[in-house]
Amino acid sequence: MEFAVIEHIKRGMVPAPKGEVWIGDDAAVIKCFTEVELFAADLVVAGVHADLDIVTLEDFGWKAIAVNVSDIAAMGGVPSYAVVSIAGASASEIEQMYRGIKEASEEYGVQVVGGDLSGGRELLISVAVIGTTEGRPPLLRSGARPGDFIFVTGPLGSSAAGLALLRGQQGFRQGGSGDGSVTPEVAAKLTDAYRRPKARLAEGVAASRAGASAMIDISDGFSADLNHLADDSHVGVELSAVPVAPGATFSDALGGGEDYELIFTAAKPEEIFAEFERAGLSPPLVVGTCSQDPSRRTLDGGSLPIIGWEHDL
Amino acid sequence: MEFAVIEHIKRGMVPAPKGEVWIGDDAAVIKCFTEVELFAADLVVAGVHADLDIVTLEDFGWKAIAVNVSDIAAMGGVPSYAVVSIAGASASEIEQMYRGIKEASEEYGVQVVGGDLSGGRELLISVAVIGTTEGRPPLLRSGARPGDFIFVTGPLGSSAAGLALLRGQQGFRQGGSGDGSVTPEVAAKLTDAYRRPKARLAEGVAASRAGASAMIDISDGFSADLNHLADDSHVGVELSAVPVAPGATFSDALGGGEDYELIFTAAKPEEIFAEFERAGLSPPLVVGTCSQDPSRRTLDGGSLPIIGWEHDL
Repeated sequence: MEFAVIEHIKRGMVPAPKGEVWIGDDAAVIKCFTEVELFAADLVVAGVHADLDIVTLEDFGWKAIAVNVSDIAAMGGVPSYAVVSIAGASASEIEQMYRGIKEASEEYGVQVVGGDLSGGRELLISVAVIGTTEGRPPLLRSGARPGDFIFVTGPLGSSAAGLALLRGQQGFRQGGSGDGSVTPEVAAKLTDAYRRPKARLAEGVAASRAGASAMIDISDGFSADLNHLADDSHVGVELSAVPVAPGATFSDALGGGEDYELIFTAAKPEEIFAEFERAGLSPPLVVGTCSQDPSRRTLDGGSLPIIGWEHDL
Repeated sequence: MEFAVIEHIKRGMVPAPKGEVWIGDDAAVIKCFTEVELFAADLVVAGVHADLDIVTLEDFGWKAIAVNVSDIAAMGGVPSYAVVSIAGASASEIEQMYRGIKEASEEYGVQVVGGDLSGGRELLISVAVIGTTEGRPPLLRSGARPGDFIFVTGPLGSSAAGLALLRGQQGFRQGGSGDGSVTPEVAAKLTDAYRRPKARLAEGVAASRAGASAMIDISDGFSADLNHLADDSHVGVELSAVPVAPGATFSDALGGGEDYELIFTAAKPEEIFAEFERAGLSPPLVVGTCSQDPSRRTLDGGSLPIIGWEHDL
């Protein structure tokens, strides 16, 4: 099976430029763009990272790429190449997943150059991605300083709310106005956030260009990931607000996870806002500041609950 | 679990040099050694690529690294960095696998700089590896020319014979002299070939330095992989011999797979032998030549059976 599938995948892809070799040899031959590069890996497992009763295999393929691109975005970089390994899928399932993989690869400008196909009892996509910093210093989790402002690239909780909607666990009434009800437009946005998470690539680059000091993407949950950043930077966190997406709950926003918005810190907000405007991006949201005491985690003066997504889907 | 395990893994590793960032951020920051680099991925699934009733989790971890290093070796390159993603393992299983991962990483000089841990019902290790060509042209599968000699880095079939031994499928009698019997020394070599496959890294570099024209590693099986190389190079194959490892059968050698010896082609055998000697390596074995007619696959004048390992373990 493997060779027929690989041939099919190869036919759907643009050919490698001179000097490079993509899918089909023992390893791909790729270009390095700068002296240091970024390298990350994330896998998605059916039943753990995606419920295939409510999302399609195309969505699953999209997500495998998007979460990896998000890791590169969270360093302020731009993805260049990816390798994609798939286990436990039939030829037809691989084809469906590859449609989503291809859409996401094109969306984010990352080239799939190789990978592996294997048997197995469980459907899984494992991706590794290389990215370039374009010569800028990589934005680590450890760079935040006391006094820095804390930003988020958008309101939170859409993915968790979308999952709940898709599962019919909310009293979802089209166009209704009661508690928990959302309009069809909002519902579509929420379910899309779960099915097709977006990597905030342009936002990550803008933050990096504007001198952000630290950055992380929200995969586990806003409070858990902000906590990682604060721990690694040895700073305290004083939040004034948690931005909740329309149709989501406060708890979705705080700990729902998989939003893939970026949290970043910066000493000079005016440069951040100017760069986001220049790049044609929605302005990021200021949610608080970093403080001296590394044990401090507050929200509106009270204690900030640290809750994270436990992959317990 | 993830963070505790990651902390444990980090403690077992050497710290990143200045300017690099390894395990613990969204992506690793790594060095590029040359303008083009190699990038490959291979995954190993329990029950598909390793029978955990007969090999240990340490062996399984070793194998995950070794098969990826072999992909880089088959390009004539040297591995630099790897990311390792694991699904379906408990903390204690991860620890055991990491012992083998670490041993293999040290053996082949590849640095594990990141990865992912996930739940799942099936134990699996997915590795992606970056390698450098050290400035030499990468050795593709497509470079063989009519008249080139065909080499193999060692006798074949040990892994398949070792698996059969471990499964007790052969009439294994210690020190016996009957059909199918092997000495304890040979038995140890065979089972070791299955449990701890070796990547022929030094051999790949030597072949590359000595001007080899094409190369591939033997994962599917000698005849199947040689067939891939001949197909991609549009040459015929005229084999004079199939070198069979002591204790292995002809069919193990021809199609057993997972030997991870390298097949390569070269126009000037004397340069190959000189370079292997200079590097202190056993001389490679000449097994035949490449011919004009791309449809030709012969062994000792007769038809060469193309059999490959179907991952049907």
